[in-house]
Amino acid sequence: MLEPERILRLEDDAVVLLDQRALPLEEVEVRCSSSAEVAEAIRTMVVRGAPAIGVAAAYALALAARNGEDLDAADRVLRESRPTAVNLAWALDEMRDAPTAEHARRIHRDEVERCRRMAAHTAGLLHPGTRALTHCNAGGLATGGYGSAVGALRAAAERGLLERVLVDETRPLLQGARLTAWELERSGIPHAVIADSAAGSLMARGEVDLVVTGADRIAANGDTANKIGTYSLAVLAAHHGIPFYVVAPTSTLDRETPDGSGIPIEERDPAELTTRFPARNPAFDVTPAALIAAIVTERGVHRAPYSFALEGESLE
Amino acid sequence: MLEPERILRLEDDAVVLLDQRALPLEEVEVRCSSSAEVAEAIRTMVVRGAPAIGVAAAYALALAARNGEDLDAADRVLRESRPTAVNLAWALDEMRDAPTAEHARRIHRDEVERCRRMAAHTAGLLHPGTRALTHCNAGGLATGGYGSAVGALRAAAERGLLERVLVDETRPLLQGARLTAWELERSGIPHAVIADSAAGSLMARGEVDLVVTGADRIAANGDTANKIGTYSLAVLAAHHGIPFYVVAPTSTLDRETPDGSGIPIEERDPAELTTRFPARNPAFDVTPAALIAAIVTERGVHRAPYSFALEGESLE
Repeated sequence: MLEPERILRLEDDAVVLLDQRALPLEEVEVRCSSSAEVAEAIRTMVVRGAPAIGVAAAYALALAARNGEDLDAADRVLRESRPTAVNLAWALDEMRDAPTAEHARRIHRDEVERCRRMAAHTAGLLHPGTRALTHCNAGGLATGGYGSAVGALRAAAERGLLERVLVDETRPLLQGARLTAWELERSGIPHAVIADSAAGSLMARGEVDLVVTGADRIAANGDTANKIGTYSLAVLAAHHGIPFYVVAPTSTLDRETPDGSGIPIEERDPAELTTRFPARNPAFDVTPAALIAAIVTERGVHRAPYSFALEGESLE
Repeated sequence: MLEPERILRLEDDAVVLLDQRALPLEEVEVRCSSSAEVAEAIRTMVVRGAPAIGVAAAYALALAARNGEDLDAADRVLRESRPTAVNLAWALDEMRDAPTAEHARRIHRDEVERCRRMAAHTAGLLHPGTRALTHCNAGGLATGGYGSAVGALRAAAERGLLERVLVDETRPLLQGARLTAWELERSGIPHAVIADSAAGSLMARGEVDLVVTGADRIAANGDTANKIGTYSLAVLAAHHGIPFYVVAPTSTLDRETPDGSGIPIEERDPAELTTRFPARNPAFDVTPAALIAAIVTERGVHRAPYSFALEGESLE
């Protein structure tokens, strides 16, 4: 497993990020010496994955405080760097009262610890010989360590429950083919990358026992925003009677948004599609709660009707 | 529109193919001076699209006869160059009694003429303001001229029925982003390329009125093999109450295969997925007849229950 501080960390004069755009070919680091540079790194996806973005923003605010930057301005620029992930706003809210290095590191540590708890909860849902399918990268790279959906697959593999993982390559930026496959290889978990469009056909052939993904934002009713293509997978899983699980920390819950219609969907540069013709590039989609067999947070396994509206309410 | 002889033609000493791998960046031709060279060009997808492959094989057999090649050997090598497209076998069967240039050119001319008739039939199914979605390239490049699904879109545009086309980029080889978008641009038809995984989400947003694709092989009961991802689109279309149309010439019908389970699915080189990790690359999938609102051939609009078993039977 990749050490959390290899993925992102705060040094005396910089937030240091493993450049996820260069993986798996190169392991290079990007040093950000201001909160604006961290915001730019988030915008350009040097660091991506909703929980990891939140941790990066926490480190950025600690750095901004240490640098004597205007914290309101730093907060605003960071908050706008990716519109869909809610952990970003959550981490900034957490940090404002005490924008210290110690506080940011605790947020980072807690995020990884949540992953381990989610993984244990999710592994409890699996049967021996499970052939899983996952989308994008809900791995250690996305959470700052261990991973949400990929963390669950790690825990399942350790318990001897996992036969292999099909990995959607995840166009346009190929986070599955580049990042998830890289993490699974490092962990010795059998896997095969597939074109996103092949998932339905492999379900029809009986080669998929469950689908597991992370989340970028979960509305109070369980509607879940995640990487574009997640919704299609959920419809296809339902059509084939395959359970579809979302694994995400409570920092991903957006308690103030009643349902998915209120979640802003980021449209990214059509140039990411590498075509010289007109293109559209929505980066996320919303999966209705009704298509989700269970949402697993560090607090446990939640099933419909989901009710994440109130802070501190029982989530079981 | 691209002239049929620009896409492929027989010259005195060669079959000349527009290299579809180089489009849209370059328009270069590949000259094949033996049937084996044509088979290699089919295998490596210099020419692709089931009807165009059939025409290329017909020209190859005419060239083989002119060259004094062993026609049985030529037939065998051509027949095995792509396993899923049935037009290949159909064209070779047609040619064996009279492997002449004139005969091959008539097959080519007939294929384009079938497209025009299919297009007229399909346009009759559309309402004004239609926002269509298509997958892969069922265009003039795929049929030797005019196109099946794209031909239908051309006819709809000419009649003022088409608002715009969403084009699946079609991983791994991007026939949508490279070839279909190029054909639509040349014809002045509004379009936007999308990631294959975005189709479901755009259907959910109400941005798709119908899906139209070509076919590589259609079994006697209407089960349809086409580019990987077609099946997922059909499931998604059914989930959203959107009609899913297949447009393909009768040369695509495989009357001797009762249903889709008998259609061989080509697995191509995982390297096409451009990942350094293990990968799987099925090139086609099978869409059950039950998910298809209509199959349009040059003979008309066919609806379930499909019965293509007998040559010459009424297909209405």
